Amino acid sequence: DVTEGEAAARERLTRMTVPPGALGQMAEVGVRLSGLAGDCPPPIPEPAVVAVFAGDHGVHARGVTPWPQEVTHQMVANFLAGGAAVNAFANQVGAEVVVVDVGVAAELDEAPGLLPRKVRRGTADMTAGPAMSREEARAALVAGVEVARDLVAAGNRLLVTGDMGIANTTASAALVAAFTGESPEVVTGRGTGVHDAMLAHKTAVVREALELHGLLAPDSSEGALRSERPAEADPLGALAAVGGLEIAGIAGLLLGGAALRTPVVVDGVVAGAAALVAAALAPTASHGWLGGHRSVEPAHTLSLTHLGLEPLLDLGLRVGEGTGALLAAPLVAAAARALAEVATFDAAGVASKDA
Amino acid sequence: DVTEGEAAARERLTRMTVPPGALGQMAEVGVRLSGLAGDCPPPIPEPAVVAVFAGDHGVHARGVTPWPQEVTHQMVANFLAGGAAVNAFANQVGAEVVVVDVGVAAELDEAPGLLPRKVRRGTADMTAGPAMSREEARAALVAGVEVARDLVAAGNRLLVTGDMGIANTTASAALVAAFTGESPEVVTGRGTGVHDAMLAHKTAVVREALELHGLLAPDSSEGALRSERPAEADPLGALAAVGGLEIAGIAGLLLGGAALRTPVVVDGVVAGAAALVAAALAPTASHGWLGGHRSVEPAHTLSLTHLGLEPLLDLGLRVGEGTGALLAAPLVAAAARALAEVATFDAAGVASKDA
Repeated sequence: DVTEGEAAARERLTRMTVPPGALGQMAEVGVRLSGLAGDCPPPIPEPAVVAVFAGDHGVHARGVTPWPQEVTHQMVANFLAGGAAVNAFANQVGAEVVVVDVGVAAELDEAPGLLPRKVRRGTADMTAGPAMSREEARAALVAGVEVARDLVAAGNRLLVTGDMGIANTTASAALVAAFTGESPEVVTGRGTGVHDAMLAHKTAVVREALELHGLLAPDSSEGALRSERPAEADPLGALAAVGGLEIAGIAGLLLGGAALRTPVVVDGVVAGAAALVAAALAPTASHGWLGGHRSVEPAHTLSLTHLGLEPLLDLGLRVGEGTGALLAAPLVAAAARALAEVATFDAAGVASKDA
Repeated sequence: DVTEGEAAARERLTRMTVPPGALGQMAEVGVRLSGLAGDCPPPIPEPAVVAVFAGDHGVHARGVTPWPQEVTHQMVANFLAGGAAVNAFANQVGAEVVVVDVGVAAELDEAPGLLPRKVRRGTADMTAGPAMSREEARAALVAGVEVARDLVAAGNRLLVTGDMGIANTTASAALVAAFTGESPEVVTGRGTGVHDAMLAHKTAVVREALELHGLLAPDSSEGALRSERPAEADPLGALAAVGGLEIAGIAGLLLGGAALRTPVVVDGVVAGAAALVAAALAPTASHGWLGGHRSVEPAHTLSLTHLGLEPLLDLGLRVGEGTGALLAAPLVAAAARALAEVATFDAAGVASKDA
């Protein structure tokens, strides 16, 4: 079980031919993988696959981003043609790219690498009503769980979250505020290129949506207690109210990976929001997740802290798509490989340090 | 040339299908590689090889580390047998490991993967006299330059620095103090496991050596001006006085890589000290170097700042051997690959954001 695997890893780390404590965060990743496997050394988590969940957002109509909505499906085509940053990084680390259409507004033609799982054509404007129904949120979650199952059944041993959806940092900010109790002013960021005036408007839109759906914590200026946050009492309701279809899909992938004891690398702010939803639904699931990177979006650091995830990379990325998490995949594999391949002091005939 | 390559990369970054500025530090790595290549996209820097320079230190006799000196050659044997952390990480990222004996105290048997370049059997105690002669320092530097030449001639396109030498964080601290003008108290760290009392002693030993050789900056408490630092006026003399044979070898590798316009990833504190020596000898060489990671040793951050290198990783590592820099190798390659493979907005038919 988890405890045995973690204990075996910690014991092995004391005997490996590296100075005590010198592997830093890599040791902690190894311990986590060993816990997930219930054994040490854990299997090397390869091959990796990035699942890019795509969906559109009704709140786009409120002018929260300078990008036209059709960029969502244009970028999906770019992913499928191999021309995006996620493809280049996946090529580098030997990962497969699959795109999951859970909610793109446009109709998409069939294509290799595209999983058609459309629940609806984009969400509704969350400042006018719920972004989607509870049934739709549940359907998108289940689609994500099933994608995890299918990808693991196909032989993948590391799942990487990816996202595409113009305006999805607005929905993510709303969810992060709802689940962490932080204020809209603290959680709302510039996404992929919002200037000062638009940022103030975007923040106001997030606040408006949270107020409409009763998701503002009582005194968010001081960070409300978990029990006082309405989202924690009804995570599916919060996801339906201010979430997104691709966010629900990623939450499902995170839950599916945890259920299959397959590690999942969490990407940026959209994945962080999805992870908050998934952790509220199943608190122990987060043991199977690894923080891929720290995005520049303020809501991302808040969600990682809330989830107890220490990101492996901090490169100032704000691309989305799964790019940051993909770059962390070789580090995750290296952490497992160190436990498997590094000799012990005894076996290598290396003297230990003096007591 | 460098300027053209960098300008071409910056221009291409504006047209690639990623939001402006969203690639963060990965964009800067791509620009640096393009400058080094004089062209954009730059070649993918693969395959990588880590050169682990090994040497012993006379200052070990002063009790600056809890590890016995024979661990240096025992770990060399471990590298050659494939049992160390550097081997596991190299396996993960597809890099070759070569070990360069520039100054191990013990005689080493011939072995595949071991380059015999011994200049002398360990340095002398730097608190009793110079660690080595100027001729020996120069010979170890030249050995490093020649290793770079041989590894690039063999087809490697990314060089990674590695080191092994019990007590070498003491020599590194002395060099970093000498080249940055910081005090021994600021630069001296715990290496691979020094407790409080030993740290105070290690710091005093560093100060003693710097005073003996006239390498303390006039007022190191405020950080002396570069022109006031004796080490800058005579880098080879400083290297001979308080350096190490493996440190000299790494400095040579850094200079050789720069001369061959082949990128070199700088590992931890020992590589940082070597890079300060190399940069003092050839100030423009640092354009070809990339910061692999930030070690927990205080002298490492100081040397990176001094060199203008932004480390790609910050994982709390303090293993040495090249481990941190190896983990950065896939990120360096991914930065080049993004410039080569990511489509432009025009080519992919993706709309740009509104002005």
